Amino acid sequence: MKSSRLEAFSDGVIAIIITIMVLELKVPLDGSPKALLHLLPLFLSYALSFVLVAIYWVNHHHLIHLIRKVDGAVLWLNANLLFWLSLTPFATAYMGQTHAAPMSVAFYGTVQTTCAVAYAFLHAAIARQHADDDQFMARYALMLRKNRIAIAITAATIPAAYVSVRLAMVLIVLPAVMYFLPDRRMEMNEAT
Amino acid sequence: MKSSRLEAFSDGVIAIIITIMVLELKVPLDGSPKALLHLLPLFLSYALSFVLVAIYWVNHHHLIHLIRKVDGAVLWLNANLLFWLSLTPFATAYMGQTHAAPMSVAFYGTVQTTCAVAYAFLHAAIARQHADDDQFMARYALMLRKNRIAIAITAATIPAAYVSVRLAMVLIVLPAVMYFLPDRRMEMNEAT
Amino acid sequence: MKSSRLEAFSDGVIAIIITIMVLELKVPLDGSPKALLHLLPLFLSYALSFVLVAIYWVNHHHLIHLIRKVDGAVLWLNANLLFWLSLTPFATAYMGQTHAAPMSVAFYGTVQTTCAVAYAFLHAAIARQHADDDQFMARYALMLRKNRIAIAITAATIPAAYVSVRLAMVLIVLPAVMYFLPDRRMEMNEAT
Amino acid sequence: MKSSRLEAFSDGVIAIIITIMVLELKVPLDGSPKALLHLLPLFLSYALSFVLVAIYWVNHHHLIHLIRKVDGAVLWLNANLLFWLSLTPFATAYMGQTHAAPMSVAFYGTVQTTCAVAYAFLHAAIARQHADDDQFMARYALMLRKNRIAIAITAATIPAAYVSVRLAMVLIVLPAVMYFLPDRRMEMNEAT
Repeated sequence: MKSSRLEAFSDGVIAIIITIMVLELKVPLDGSPKALLHLLPLFLSYALSFVLVAIYWVNHHHLIHLIRKVDGAVLWLNANLLFWLSLTPFATAYMGQTHAAPMSVAFYGTVQTTCAVAYAFLHAAIARQHADDDQFMARYALMLRKNRIAIAITAATIPAAYVSVRLAMVLIVLPAVMYFLPDRRMEMNEAT
Repeated sequence: MKSSRLEAFSDGVIAIIITIMVLELKVPLDGSPKALLHLLPLFLSYALSFVLVAIYWVNHHHLIHLIRKVDGAVLWLNANLLFWLSLTPFATAYMGQTHAAPMSVAFYGTVQTTCAVAYAFLHAAIARQHADDDQFMARYALMLRKNRIAIAITAATIPAAYVSVRLAMVLIVLPAVMYFLPDRRMEMNEAT
Repeated sequence: MKSSRLEAFSDGVIAIIITIMVLELKVPLDGSPKALLHLLPLFLSYALSFVLVAIYWVNHHHLIHLIRKVDGAVLWLNANLLFWLSLTPFATAYMGQTHAAPMSVAFYGTVQTTCAVAYAFLHAAIARQHADDDQFMARYALMLRKNRIAIAITAATIPAAYVSVRLAMVLIVLPAVMYFLPDRRMEMNEAT
Repeated sequence: MKSSRLEAFSDGVIAIIITIMVLELKVPLDGSPKALLHLLPLFLSYALSFVLVAIYWVNHHHLIHLIRKVDGAVLWLNANLLFWLSLTPFATAYMGQTHAAPMSVAFYGTVQTTCAVAYAFLHAAIARQHADDDQFMARYALMLRKNRIAIAITAATIPAAYVSVRLAMVLIVLPAVMYFLPDRRMEMNEAT
């Protein structure tokens, strides 16, 4: 299997995940401003998830292009990442529907943590294919440290949700931005 | 990232947006003509949105082919456009479900306006990549004027919906046709 | 625009149409045989629609490969075909939900007729691009006659549904098989 | 038709099947742990189906690459496989919703059996294209025996569901793993 096919399939799944979330915005039956305003938490959680999934899409692309061989490990760790990502529409609607009840925010944080861990596992499997490339492995070691900090912060949202929902929200957004924005060191690696 | 991948992903999202709208047509449980006729406003709003999204698809294609480099600005302004487009199924169902209540038409107009503004932002980011091309920039200046008129008309649907729903409908359809039909000047630019 | 992009987008829309139909099979809440048997009409209408849409997919592929230039006519007549095809999941669920009430069968026949007419319009627009090719036009004249008979039979399902649902079903299946199976004469044309 | 197009369309349908299953996870309206725990059977059946469909995706890829010519048999046996696979989201939700009632597990087993039989039919049609290749046919004969055992075990889940749901679950997972994991003998054949 070529990595281009793995990428096309993953793209298809991510495109569906990002778009079906909007189906959870249940249409109000009356045309009053109140009915529409009632949907605001759901809308905001949709916007947040759209951005998070889009960041995964961009970074996934960079990762896929580092694959040397689509072996069993890469194939199934990629499927694993897609599985946890596919729970995002559910977690998003759950958080919006319950108006960010602590339980739902903790659940959202759990799904985000599993996605980040699944991404790190896929990243590690691809890095193993470059074990003979010292320059690559030096960069990967740097990233790995960063990844671990990011996962720790994301995981911290789970207990934080029961203390303060606002704090939990900050902890969800923070590492996503820091960790998942396309990494210049990765791009440099692609260029060389 | 190549623009072909950006295009394939955007195509996937637009194909899903245009098709899932039909899921909002809730199936009547009895086989009476009255139950089916009751769906007519929803059906008409679906037909309108199908055309509007199809126009975006065609124009998006022309725009993507003008990209010189998929940089961060292009990537995120494209994601921004897809986000607002993805609200179309919701706005469509809302307008159909409430039988074009003023509030729902104003909301539909708002979503259309944000889509038009998001498209203009993406257009501007791509134009910046051609800043050294005088011929391109001269054409772009002409379009920019047209774009601003089109956005103003679309935005006018929001207050208009509270005065006359029919007037608002005309204001939604008008600039879409004028602004989003593939522009011959753009195509000429592609040819040269 | 290249015809390959038109094909990829159409494929995406058709793949979504054919798959989301299954979402209309509402899951029974109890595990009794009766609850499952209750879904049989819905299941049968899904199977019928799956086959009909798959036939469109195959024939659409043959048609797209005859395109010389993706002009406005081809673009919008293709969008028109996709629009009517996209009503199939609704018509299917309506027929299944009402256990093939005459009204719902007539509606299903109407959607099938509009799809067949939309397909014929697209076919005609593509044929016009080959007006200088006598061999092509001779074959097209033969097909056109066949198309007209097929559309007439499909349209006959609409009144027939009020007389006998079984007769209407035969009239839906018959021309679909006769008209939409890949035409060897078309394939010969592709080969030459 | 080229096999690459058959593959792209099949990929699209499989990507949609695997992703829309998550829409069956109905969002709880309150943020209590009990409401979330109530979804556990549905979640587990989703995870099981995700893995089974992913295995089909991987194996389908290997199969498609053995196609010499996309003839009518391959085309329609592939559509047949996609049809039965498309029933997986329904069977999954049914099993989860009824908390694995015997009837629902038997139904799930039935869908899995029809998928396995449909896959075997497609496999046989592709093998016929290699009838002149003794090495290929020798390997195919070995697989055919394995396939028949796997289908027999899968079919055994249907009566087993009424005896013990746990036993039925083992019978669903067992042959899927044994039969559908990419076969090294097939890959060797691709390499030669």
